[in-house]
Amino acid sequence: MSTTTRSIEEQAINTIRVLSVDAVQKANSGHPGTAMALAPMAHVLWKEFLNYNPKNTHWANRDRFILSAGHACMLQYSILYLTGYDISLDDIKNFRQLNSKTPGHPEYGLTPGIDVTTGPLGAGFSNGVGFAIAQKYLAATYNKPGFDLFNYHIYSICSDGDMMEGVASEAASLAGHLELGNIIYLYDDNKISIEGSTDIAFNEDVNKRFEAYGWHVQSVDDVNDIHALQLAITNAKAEKQKPSLIRVRSLIAYGSPNKSGTAGSHGAPLGADEVKLVKEFFGFDPEKSFEVSEEVLKYYHEIGARGAGTEDKWNKLFAEYKAQFPELAAEYELAASGELPEGWLDALPTFKASDPKMATRQASGKVLNAIVGKIPGLIGGAADLSPSTETHLKAYDSFTSENRGGRNFHFGIREHAMGSAINGMALTPGIIPFGATFLIFSEYQRPPIRLAAIMKIRSIFVYTHDSIGLGEDGTTHQPVEQLISLRSIPNIVVLRPADANETAQAWKVALEHKGGPVVLIFTRQGLPILDQDKYGKATNVVKGAYVLSEAEGDAQLILIGTGSEVDLAMKAQAKLKEEGIAATVVSMPSWELFEKQDAAYKESVLPKAIKKRLAIEAGSALGWHKYVTDEGDTVTMHGFGESAPAEALNKVFGFTVENVVNKAKALL
Amino acid sequence: MSTTTRSIEEQAINTIRVLSVDAVQKANSGHPGTAMALAPMAHVLWKEFLNYNPKNTHWANRDRFILSAGHACMLQYSILYLTGYDISLDDIKNFRQLNSKTPGHPEYGLTPGIDVTTGPLGAGFSNGVGFAIAQKYLAATYNKPGFDLFNYHIYSICSDGDMMEGVASEAASLAGHLELGNIIYLYDDNKISIEGSTDIAFNEDVNKRFEAYGWHVQSVDDVNDIHALQLAITNAKAEKQKPSLIRVRSLIAYGSPNKSGTAGSHGAPLGADEVKLVKEFFGFDPEKSFEVSEEVLKYYHEIGARGAGTEDKWNKLFAEYKAQFPELAAEYELAASGELPEGWLDALPTFKASDPKMATRQASGKVLNAIVGKIPGLIGGAADLSPSTETHLKAYDSFTSENRGGRNFHFGIREHAMGSAINGMALTPGIIPFGATFLIFSEYQRPPIRLAAIMKIRSIFVYTHDSIGLGEDGTTHQPVEQLISLRSIPNIVVLRPADANETAQAWKVALEHKGGPVVLIFTRQGLPILDQDKYGKATNVVKGAYVLSEAEGDAQLILIGTGSEVDLAMKAQAKLKEEGIAATVVSMPSWELFEKQDAAYKESVLPKAIKKRLAIEAGSALGWHKYVTDEGDTVTMHGFGESAPAEALNKVFGFTVENVVNKAKALL
Repeated sequence: MSTTTRSIEEQAINTIRVLSVDAVQKANSGHPGTAMALAPMAHVLWKEFLNYNPKNTHWANRDRFILSAGHACMLQYSILYLTGYDISLDDIKNFRQLNSKTPGHPEYGLTPGIDVTTGPLGAGFSNGVGFAIAQKYLAATYNKPGFDLFNYHIYSICSDGDMMEGVASEAASLAGHLELGNIIYLYDDNKISIEGSTDIAFNEDVNKRFEAYGWHVQSVDDVNDIHALQLAITNAKAEKQKPSLIRVRSLIAYGSPNKSGTAGSHGAPLGADEVKLVKEFFGFDPEKSFEVSEEVLKYYHEIGARGAGTEDKWNKLFAEYKAQFPELAAEYELAASGELPEGWLDALPTFKASDPKMATRQASGKVLNAIVGKIPGLIGGAADLSPSTETHLKAYDSFTSENRGGRNFHFGIREHAMGSAINGMALTPGIIPFGATFLIFSEYQRPPIRLAAIMKIRSIFVYTHDSIGLGEDGTTHQPVEQLISLRSIPNIVVLRPADANETAQAWKVALEHKGGPVVLIFTRQGLPILDQDKYGKATNVVKGAYVLSEAEGDAQLILIGTGSEVDLAMKAQAKLKEEGIAATVVSMPSWELFEKQDAAYKESVLPKAIKKRLAIEAGSALGWHKYVTDEGDTVTMHGFGESAPAEALNKVFGFTVENVVNKAKALL
Repeated sequence: MSTTTRSIEEQAINTIRVLSVDAVQKANSGHPGTAMALAPMAHVLWKEFLNYNPKNTHWANRDRFILSAGHACMLQYSILYLTGYDISLDDIKNFRQLNSKTPGHPEYGLTPGIDVTTGPLGAGFSNGVGFAIAQKYLAATYNKPGFDLFNYHIYSICSDGDMMEGVASEAASLAGHLELGNIIYLYDDNKISIEGSTDIAFNEDVNKRFEAYGWHVQSVDDVNDIHALQLAITNAKAEKQKPSLIRVRSLIAYGSPNKSGTAGSHGAPLGADEVKLVKEFFGFDPEKSFEVSEEVLKYYHEIGARGAGTEDKWNKLFAEYKAQFPELAAEYELAASGELPEGWLDALPTFKASDPKMATRQASGKVLNAIVGKIPGLIGGAADLSPSTETHLKAYDSFTSENRGGRNFHFGIREHAMGSAINGMALTPGIIPFGATFLIFSEYQRPPIRLAAIMKIRSIFVYTHDSIGLGEDGTTHQPVEQLISLRSIPNIVVLRPADANETAQAWKVALEHKGGPVVLIFTRQGLPILDQDKYGKATNVVKGAYVLSEAEGDAQLILIGTGSEVDLAMKAQAKLKEEGIAATVVSMPSWELFEKQDAAYKESVLPKAIKKRLAIEAGSALGWHKYVTDEGDTVTMHGFGESAPAEALNKVFGFTVENVVNKAKALL
């Protein structure tokens, strides 16, 4: 490697470039151009700005780094490897291979140093707003004079795609509103996207737009101007009130004589010949691959090694804090461990059958307000629907630019950004976030729900107004296919409780669940409260399905209900009994939880001998066949709803005792 | 009604207000506040600006009006009734009742004068960009000197929610880029949303943001200042290049002494007592309901009646045009009728089994390019993925601010806005739009797909990279649950063709289908071409499923495949045959089309006597139980994918001949 004319810093930066190019070439797949262009950015961040300890990627006060331009992941893998994270050169060589630590887009939980899974554009940008909220909340809750425990920043590298995606616009508006000055985003303005120049689709004034959101905006004309980058990031750190955007011009595939500045270098290997030319350009041996000089490795290892000391200092600070504020420290440590405080369940309310009808959204509001004081870090809000979703935490303030300790969040009419922010919050130990809107608007949140499921994090999505039972708002607002399409997401738990007590148990599941997001689905309309002394216990919610009401005598059929339709099943059971037909009622709040039960339990709820089964759910029939068998049937929706009072709709769409009874009898 | 001090114009505007309040009160449900506030806006538009004929709401050159703030629909129903559309006072009284013409949010196809279904915020705003594109395209394609056939504008009333939703941000950026000067949007800046003052979540500088997008931005300080409204809209019409946003300050529930300016007036009836006070404020008899003076009715009827003359003039112009440009006129008329030109099918390519392997995305590109010249109005593009989705129309230019006749669209990395724009385009007779991206990014488009299905319009959604078969891009990019969650949408047709010939037939279905959107799902990876002389014909795609390859002798089981997994089924069939097991292979590109077939056809494909069935699809198992029966099984995905070459993933996830054969044998 010819190093005669290049400083160690230049060599270091070029090593990131060449490693990235080699990895993409070897994988014969990937995105070399951005990694090549942005190597100076990664270098400056990891060398001078990020607080991190490569040996402990879970350090609570580390700065967060989000590669929102996730396709450029080789950039991050390279710098992580070089600075001494638990990523080897072999891992780099295994880029995009089965079971490697270096997948095609960054994956949280798989690769040390990856704070969040990215790839779908706009996601990382908007997750960062959640990270930033969480930092402010932790600081307000736990920092004390002399104990600036949580003072980290949220850094991100974003791309043109992030600037175009609507979710990032929503998140940027929210971040500006909340004055999240802990955000420092670098926007790679490379003027290239897959179809060619960004001029073909994107010529807005990005800086002006971000100023309109209330951001602090700077421009750097050339990413290779290290000094300008340093200055801009320093300025951004000094700006405490406004989130910062630093627009940085770059040349995609910088160093590639034939492909730089072209769309062709975005998402495909450069080709063996071009890789050689790149190596020559950067003074590397064109015949060698994955070449890392000892000098460069030492240089970056020394940089990375500083982090242990930084963390150590913080650990000492935390130890002192613990001595001085033992209760707060213990509270934080427990919360950060993901466990819930002992005794919190005592606060979980129960409801009596003699209580008046109660919508499950209302029950949810009561539950939430009853338990929130017992569960530090349980914070959340709605997308401008808190009165309707009943998610307001009455004893607490709102989280605002002036009050960072508030536990109520006003996300605005920005469902998608709310979902993404929730994920960023959930990725912060100590925080259990929830976000609420109408079930129909889960449609706006599909990408973050999926990412929460991929990351297996405890994001809680609260959805109310869950069926035609919402009535007059009509077709556009009435969920039909939302239940099945949420259930179809791997690693998710969807819960649709049947009454107030099942609602309390659903919240219990949501808070205790590990391994993925939980979706809580509530009614707008009032529902009777099932008698816990007479019927199956709501504590069975955790099993996904349970026998709510046994048939008298040998059951001839099983009625399976979820949510508001359980009441219908109960009434149909009574009516059938009058006609001498013995039916069992099963409440099935969660398919996913039921699937996790052992065969014996499943058999006890849905015995193979009884194949005459009728499922009743005010949603799509899809997926129910499995539970009702070839001999069963469903009372479900077969098209969109309509605008009318709920009672009228129930008649039109067959959610009546009469129709359920008739369908049940037809099975026999 | 006391009219002594009020002009007829004031009385007219107040009638809109009082009608709206009465309707919401009678329905005991709805959103009175915005309708009350914005009555002057509706009045000015319908009186002075909109070109419309209440007697023919399909007139091709009418101005389009989009109530993006769909919850305020009583505003529009009131003005439609008053100006003589086919909406009666009884319809107004039936607001939000079963089978009424006046549902809780505006519904296209149900109510005369409603150009698009709205309600989910941001949708109408972004549909309008599609309407505007379509107008420009029609004008460029059909207008001739002296024949300014298509010169209509796109008007919309938008709310704070529209300003906050990301999809509107995407659409605004696109509209600015494309210089859609035919857009005139009025933004109701009422500073109130459901949770209270918008200050709690939204304090960005909206005007500045829209200027950054390249919009022409004006402000009107008081919606009651009719003259200022007139002036602003006149200015907006004069601005030919930039889309226009007019920010109009209003007081929600203006005229309600106790509820104006409050969130409480947004989404609930004012209450009987307050309604009386409102009527007093506006000089109406507080004891009467639905009071419309003859004077006001006559006044608005006269305004509405002008439209017949306007249309008549246009019809004459079109008749002259037809005489002078008979071919163009005929082309437009046929396209606008929704029918396809005779003989277009001759252009549909067929593919030979001897051809090399071909990805269905590639086949789709060939098909599209072969037929596009035969089908006027077939236009579309991708969300910055046209090289990957193979949707570029090679013989055509791009649609740009300078070239309105281009048929290729660069939507940018704005999937959601693309979906919404496609819907606006599909709502314009003469246009058959398609929009393409990766299947995983259908997640960003759930709201517009659903709205297309509700409206039953011919939006064509093209999705490629449809499974783990895409390989290295990994978990975040690999669809799993997308097929089932798309299939779950009512009124939709999802097609996942198995090879190049099925792909051609899938496009045929998409273009000929009426009654809803069609989703075309294609592979990234190459697939062999099934021999049309040897196996079931690809023309059966229209039936949703068909016997592709009969078992030799009595079938013991049926292998059901879709898309890329059909090839696997064929290979497994051959292997099973070697082992003396007779299996039939069914190709099932579309559940929805199969469900539409008669019982006899269904029985011929999936005979009840053969319940040993194995479905093979690289997606979620959900929903397959119905087709494989209690005695069948599936080879499907049971979790998220991984980043690795496709071949490795197929092994890991069981998409191998060996695994299919083993699972098949286990059934016997």
